[in-house]
Amino acid sequence: MKKLINATDAVVAEALRGFEAAHADLVRVNHDPAYIVRADSPVKGKVGVLSGGGSGHEPMHGGFVGMGMLDAACPGEVFTSPTPDQMYEATKAVDGGAGVLHIVKNYTGDVLNFEMAAELARADGVQVEAVVTDDDVAVQDSLYTAGRRGVGVTVLAEKIVGAAAEEGRGLAEVAELCRRVNAQGRSMGMALTSCTVPAAGSPTFELGDDEMEIGIGIHGEPGRERVPLASAREVTAMLANPILDDLPFSSGGQVLAFVNGMGGTPQLELYIVYNELRAILDERGVEAARSLVGSYITSLEMAGCSITLLKLDEEMTRLWDAPVRTAGLRWGA
Amino acid sequence: MKKLINATDAVVAEALRGFEAAHADLVRVNHDPAYIVRADSPVKGKVGVLSGGGSGHEPMHGGFVGMGMLDAACPGEVFTSPTPDQMYEATKAVDGGAGVLHIVKNYTGDVLNFEMAAELARADGVQVEAVVTDDDVAVQDSLYTAGRRGVGVTVLAEKIVGAAAEEGRGLAEVAELCRRVNAQGRSMGMALTSCTVPAAGSPTFELGDDEMEIGIGIHGEPGRERVPLASAREVTAMLANPILDDLPFSSGGQVLAFVNGMGGTPQLELYIVYNELRAILDERGVEAARSLVGSYITSLEMAGCSITLLKLDEEMTRLWDAPVRTAGLRWGA
Repeated sequence: MKKLINATDAVVAEALRGFEAAHADLVRVNHDPAYIVRADSPVKGKVGVLSGGGSGHEPMHGGFVGMGMLDAACPGEVFTSPTPDQMYEATKAVDGGAGVLHIVKNYTGDVLNFEMAAELARADGVQVEAVVTDDDVAVQDSLYTAGRRGVGVTVLAEKIVGAAAEEGRGLAEVAELCRRVNAQGRSMGMALTSCTVPAAGSPTFELGDDEMEIGIGIHGEPGRERVPLASAREVTAMLANPILDDLPFSSGGQVLAFVNGMGGTPQLELYIVYNELRAILDERGVEAARSLVGSYITSLEMAGCSITLLKLDEEMTRLWDAPVRTAGLRWGA
Repeated sequence: MKKLINATDAVVAEALRGFEAAHADLVRVNHDPAYIVRADSPVKGKVGVLSGGGSGHEPMHGGFVGMGMLDAACPGEVFTSPTPDQMYEATKAVDGGAGVLHIVKNYTGDVLNFEMAAELARADGVQVEAVVTDDDVAVQDSLYTAGRRGVGVTVLAEKIVGAAAEEGRGLAEVAELCRRVNAQGRSMGMALTSCTVPAAGSPTFELGDDEMEIGIGIHGEPGRERVPLASAREVTAMLANPILDDLPFSSGGQVLAFVNGMGGTPQLELYIVYNELRAILDERGVEAARSLVGSYITSLEMAGCSITLLKLDEEMTRLWDAPVRTAGLRWGA
């Protein structure tokens, strides 16, 4: 295993120290239990927006803490759900009196632990709403999931919902918006290579030199099918078509087109995929009104990509464009 | 070779199409000869700032075109110098009447081609100044270089010099600032794995499972030594100490501490390295007044990292903080 680490059991804790040192202008970090909050939290009168999940998907979620996006993120160990006490303490730390929204990717461990944390926080008088994202069209159930997995839409939801909370909207409204973003977004991913969880020390799965996995999960969970290597054009079609067929389009429409790198794929390749995606969208009469290309929800050093399409409406577009100031996504601020 | 591409000879051209489609709000792209200019160029009365080099190092340089940074970037084929006509045409395209600065990484092909382009542009009456960056302390001469190689400082110079040009400073002053940034910055990199140039189809070099290369170049050029795998703490010391010993410090001082990923290294690992770097800086009484952690000057999917330290003064810090609006680096705008 070739990694820039000191000890397999200290990876997340030490990375968190580094993140804290690098971004003291944006965030504060609590180490036990581990959570990241924006530097000025709690923001009085604002709905707190909190997410979390296993580490190894950076910049998601810690890299999205800051003005206009998340108030808090709870990092678990690599590919392991954070604990309820992390979520509970973080919830209390960012409650500015207007309640806290939990954005939860649909993995069984995350869902259960977030439910427990919400109950604990409510018992303390904190209003909590939770929205579960489940945008991955690849498979219905999966290794760690009942129903669809929550993937790329989570990044977009955190941005859009974070902007709405920043505008001072109430908890019910912010939660409703989050559900709408999830309902209008779909994703699918693929892998050219596996990744290696530090504590495991060997690749999560084996993939032949001439094979790729279509519909991969962000923890290396099996996807739809293992197929021979194909061109970027073919791969893009294999991801984009199931997404487009599943999206609630009447006709045409505008999307936010998000091409995401899994961690080990160079930007050159992501832009080639984006170029192919635009050709497919053009053919279907769908306008890519906004775009995002880069590695935002990753699987350590896995090579591969995912595509997320979010059907936009005017409000979502405006909130997407609103200022954001985080380590991982920043504009207008 | 596992890559998301269509044809090895179309990688750069197709990625450029994707980049153009994704960032039409920031840039315009010319395809023959290939160059990227900011959307509002030429900016009348402003010094144009232009860089370029082989592709495969993204987001550098195309991802740094936009308000507050580069006016133009010329992408060569992967790890191959752009041609003089790309540089010449781009120079003319961004000349707003105040002249154009070429920021050139010290590789023999780049230096020669930029010199030729500058001569051609001057013959057309465009004022051109060139600054060659050579911040890599690893080796004195290298496979493609006489003298030190130009690496991470180039990113920082493009940001700082771009901000100065945005303020309306003259060509001589902007060039002088660029020389000062280069003189006050030092870098060194390492690799855990090789990368594969698409047109070559096989890894650029071989590295054993228990080996790493210290002092690697961004094209996989040999570094100082090949050594057994070591911890993040040891690796950080191997990179940071030669840099600090070489920096023009009288005592203490402030630096911009830049931990850069080579492309295939997860953010978790980069933050672990940053944490170690901060410990070394603390010990030396050097303050990390600004930081940058991420993959900004890459070598395709190579795993590894580089460290760049830039000794800051008040002016550089102010210009670093100034608004920037590019695909790869953005804040305050």
